[in-house]
Amino acid sequence: MLFKKIAIIGIGLIGGSVARALKANSQCKIISGFGRNPDNLKKAMDLGVIDHCSDDIRTVVADADIILIATPLATYRSVFELIKPCIGDNMLITDAGSEKGSVIKSAREILGDRIKQFIPGHPIAGTEKSGVESSFKELYEDHLVILTPLPENSEQDIDQVTRMWEACGADVVTLGIEYHDKVLAATSHLPHVLAYALVDCLADMEEEGDVFKFSAGGFRDFTRIAASNPEMWADICLANKDQLLQLIDQYSQYLEKIYKLISDNDRAGLMELFIRVKQTREKLN
Amino acid sequence: MLFKKIAIIGIGLIGGSVARALKANSQCKIISGFGRNPDNLKKAMDLGVIDHCSDDIRTVVADADIILIATPLATYRSVFELIKPCIGDNMLITDAGSEKGSVIKSAREILGDRIKQFIPGHPIAGTEKSGVESSFKELYEDHLVILTPLPENSEQDIDQVTRMWEACGADVVTLGIEYHDKVLAATSHLPHVLAYALVDCLADMEEEGDVFKFSAGGFRDFTRIAASNPEMWADICLANKDQLLQLIDQYSQYLEKIYKLISDNDRAGLMELFIRVKQTREKLN
Repeated sequence: MLFKKIAIIGIGLIGGSVARALKANSQCKIISGFGRNPDNLKKAMDLGVIDHCSDDIRTVVADADIILIATPLATYRSVFELIKPCIGDNMLITDAGSEKGSVIKSAREILGDRIKQFIPGHPIAGTEKSGVESSFKELYEDHLVILTPLPENSEQDIDQVTRMWEACGADVVTLGIEYHDKVLAATSHLPHVLAYALVDCLADMEEEGDVFKFSAGGFRDFTRIAASNPEMWADICLANKDQLLQLIDQYSQYLEKIYKLISDNDRAGLMELFIRVKQTREKLN
Repeated sequence: MLFKKIAIIGIGLIGGSVARALKANSQCKIISGFGRNPDNLKKAMDLGVIDHCSDDIRTVVADADIILIATPLATYRSVFELIKPCIGDNMLITDAGSEKGSVIKSAREILGDRIKQFIPGHPIAGTEKSGVESSFKELYEDHLVILTPLPENSEQDIDQVTRMWEACGADVVTLGIEYHDKVLAATSHLPHVLAYALVDCLADMEEEGDVFKFSAGGFRDFTRIAASNPEMWADICLANKDQLLQLIDQYSQYLEKIYKLISDNDRAGLMELFIRVKQTREKLN
């Protein structure tokens, strides 16, 4: 058994799925939960996702081997403030935030010497659903989890967090902080923004008629991520602001390139671009 | 049985799936195919998708009750030229093109008096795959087919084309030509362009590292349509150029709106927008 006790701050899709996976694989004896919403904690207890909860953070964190922060990014500063007095010398702290630069900056400011116990992480898994009722133990199976370790972290502590995610079925890789934020801006944050903008644009057209009625599977696939948790995504956009804005600018140039090919009736140019893209995309299947 | 014989010009995903559905539902005795590529026609024969084929368009079209054009849009003018001398007085002509304005313009120019026999159509179904080997009889089940009838069409002929699609399991609706092209630009053509631009943008970043390696399910769903048939999509972009370019402009303003909210650190504004979009998107599930 990996842990006697884990304290999970934020029992939603992400935190709830870690809890379910550790429980299912008998890797943790006691799973204790903390969150802003008492009804949600009660639901997590009723569903058997966690074993214990309290509105007193001290009893949740007490004697935990590891604290997992799985709340929206905007809450991180207050979560760090809240847990700081409760962190024991041998406790690990990790998180599941989709952005790492500003998370680590806050952690350094607030956790002080405890920073060496914080191993930042990010599971590349999720669905457009949210809430503990959407969590499931297989969420991380065959998915990547990225750790962005700090110079202060010990090898042993990094290994322990790696084992936690491996116990959930994930493959763990490590990346530099800035590279993580750049890559995730490209493969996750930008696509979400593009999908939000598309549905927003069409919703205004919709007022004139039945635009959405005539949408097929491709459109539904394309816009599924626009149903993601608004709070979580507002926070991600702001946390990874610099990388994301730069990428939106960059993307706009690629969109402009296609605009120009269409505008110029350049069929050969469009074909060349679409063939190249198709080949790239097919490598991902 | 609806038809003694159908002539399908272009036996790919779309034409092949009509053939399979009509055959499976015993709605057509002879399915005859014509296409640019002899190997493809042979494959369609081998797969049992069509009963007959020939490189002589006259034998394919002879005695057909209906001609279905299911080729890329750029070929339409030459297809109209080719079939024109073979059209009998009681033959219907329909198509499956994703754009209707320029298709109908070409049809009027080339078909002359036969225009009354041409009932333009567009099935809102498809996958990112193409080719007869990807066709399947259920493709149209519970999907919409849009007809954009012409003033010259008779009610009886429109009904007959409606019955053909209903025999494939589809629900048939009629729309105005311009409105069809506007709505499809929004729900289909624009999303394809956005996905092509995203994969193109990231492919250039990819050269620096492993961008795509860190993509999750949402990204794969989002970009699936970027693996669609390049020729078909180059043609659609050019055929529906005016509507599409106008929509890309419009979309860019919505993207700019999100850019500004992020740039201004306007969390409340982002939340408001994302919540509204989530509600809109969830109605589609």
